[in-house]
Amino acid sequence: MLPDLLDGLVADPFAVLNAVGLVAFALVGATKAIREEFDLFGVTVVGLGTAFAGGATRDILVGRVPLALQSFGEISLGLLGVALAIALSVTFDDADEHPVAVASDAAGLAAFATAGAIVATDVGVSGFGVVAIAVINACGGGAFADILLDRSPFILVEDFYASCTVLGGLTYWLVDVGAFAGVVGSAAGTAAACCAAVTIGARFVGVYFGWRLPTAQSLAVHTSRGER
Amino acid sequence: MLPDLLDGLVADPFAVLNAVGLVAFALVGATKAIREEFDLFGVTVVGLGTAFAGGATRDILVGRVPLALQSFGEISLGLLGVALAIALSVTFDDADEHPVAVASDAAGLAAFATAGAIVATDVGVSGFGVVAIAVINACGGGAFADILLDRSPFILVEDFYASCTVLGGLTYWLVDVGAFAGVVGSAAGTAAACCAAVTIGARFVGVYFGWRLPTAQSLAVHTSRGER
Amino acid sequence: MLPDLLDGLVADPFAVLNAVGLVAFALVGATKAIREEFDLFGVTVVGLGTAFAGGATRDILVGRVPLALQSFGEISLGLLGVALAIALSVTFDDADEHPVAVASDAAGLAAFATAGAIVATDVGVSGFGVVAIAVINACGGGAFADILLDRSPFILVEDFYASCTVLGGLTYWLVDVGAFAGVVGSAAGTAAACCAAVTIGARFVGVYFGWRLPTAQSLAVHTSRGER
Repeated sequence: MLPDLLDGLVADPFAVLNAVGLVAFALVGATKAIREEFDLFGVTVVGLGTAFAGGATRDILVGRVPLALQSFGEISLGLLGVALAIALSVTFDDADEHPVAVASDAAGLAAFATAGAIVATDVGVSGFGVVAIAVINACGGGAFADILLDRSPFILVEDFYASCTVLGGLTYWLVDVGAFAGVVGSAAGTAAACCAAVTIGARFVGVYFGWRLPTAQSLAVHTSRGER
Repeated sequence: MLPDLLDGLVADPFAVLNAVGLVAFALVGATKAIREEFDLFGVTVVGLGTAFAGGATRDILVGRVPLALQSFGEISLGLLGVALAIALSVTFDDADEHPVAVASDAAGLAAFATAGAIVATDVGVSGFGVVAIAVINACGGGAFADILLDRSPFILVEDFYASCTVLGGLTYWLVDVGAFAGVVGSAAGTAAACCAAVTIGARFVGVYFGWRLPTAQSLAVHTSRGER
Repeated sequence: MLPDLLDGLVADPFAVLNAVGLVAFALVGATKAIREEFDLFGVTVVGLGTAFAGGATRDILVGRVPLALQSFGEISLGLLGVALAIALSVTFDDADEHPVAVASDAAGLAAFATAGAIVATDVGVSGFGVVAIAVINACGGGAFADILLDRSPFILVEDFYASCTVLGGLTYWLVDVGAFAGVVGSAAGTAAACCAAVTIGARFVGVYFGWRLPTAQSLAVHTSRGER
């Protein structure tokens, strides 16, 4: 199975990142819902919502019928993630914090941010729009799940997670309109590869070093210390 | 009045189910907001949101301007439900739990799930899309209201409610693409009738027997008991 | 700078109201997020969400790609509001309650309600639709921010805030389809001016007198007192 995965990764790296990400996102979301003792319908909705609500929001923003409603393949991967979460919940309390889940989630983050940047560029929004849609595509599902779980989206409060997709989206836009913009075909492919690499790289580095963004309060403390 | 209603039910059963459902959904939502001491604007928004947010989300997903913004008739029924909730709140604490409200709500659940399945089929989404849009059309308004009330959508946690619309949507899709698919005209009508009947039937049976879906925890207990 | 602002206000009053409102809305939202100790990404998202989510929802409802994703100018004003909130948070605990912030917020409320009514009328929705889209355009961002902050939207519970935009939207619709409807060109301009004036006027009067809408409970108390 591993050799197959590696072969696939070489042939179409994005399809593999995307598939791994869908399973991981659904598993992470479903595990959170299991922890809150949601029923099986609730666990499925939160799991699929985590995997697909970001992409659906992207599609709504650019005026398309969400892709997730049009194909069985992607939904099957989401349902696989939900089923895995339910099966693993018997043995693990925190299947979503297992290193394999965290790494697969990072793969999804990169795939979804890149997909968002590509769609946004196709529609012709501004540079801000490209970054915003990359972030929404990658992080919107998790934020939607947290709202269903009656809490503030964790991406707004802690961790170095959404910031990776900001960096990724920005990279895509800079490469696509920047130095390589004359050579459109190659620029889009290069921009996608750079976006994915920056997003997943930033995520791994952030997890490794336990990075988190400062709050305004911590900035104020640093400022007043600086003034002394 | 009752004979009129019965005459209407024979002439156009869906219009009657839909009208009864809009009043009931608005009453249920407004009653929840009254219980949380929202002001009259808040009570109206939560009531109308319960009745119309599911259909509006369906319309946004398929790329249409929400019907509720285009006609006065449906909104009037929603406002009637809100006014009823305010009037009844003087005498009843739990107007939304009265058997008449529960039965009318089930009528709405069936009408909205069927409307969702019809619209989804017209747009040409997958079988998953048909079920998802039926569920969103029927349950999205209540979920939106619960988010406004700062709680997790109750359909994710308790009761046998959204599951009825999953069964209804699945029935619609099976009948529409299944055995009767050669005879399109009749199939759509048959599918709609089956969807509504399954949804309302499942809801009544579920309420009568106090059904609720299991959680992953309860599955795990059953599994480990089975293993002993 | 003040003379420039006054010159601009005479030349294009709506552009000025809109610009002031975007900065104020972003400042108010970001200040709320700072108070909850969100990180800088969260503060930015809640600030920009307060300023732009209402307009984005309006655009989604009428089937357009949100304007905020298409231009840098408006986003820059939002980012200015976020930066101001962070800078002011060192000295002020409640920058969003300063009279300048409250007055600028009222300017935004008027500009956004009017923009919503204009777009809604262009699309050809019902009178209810015009009022609903005016309210959503003006108040949807604040409601979205409150959901991100894990609370019920304050407009549903307290204050005389959304009600001002109901009055403004109703005024727009009455003037546009009413007495002046024969003279379309002038009617739209007149309707916009009346909508903005009624919204901002109602807001100032409401703040001055500390108005708030009654709850169903307080109505019931009045009713039963009247009956005695």
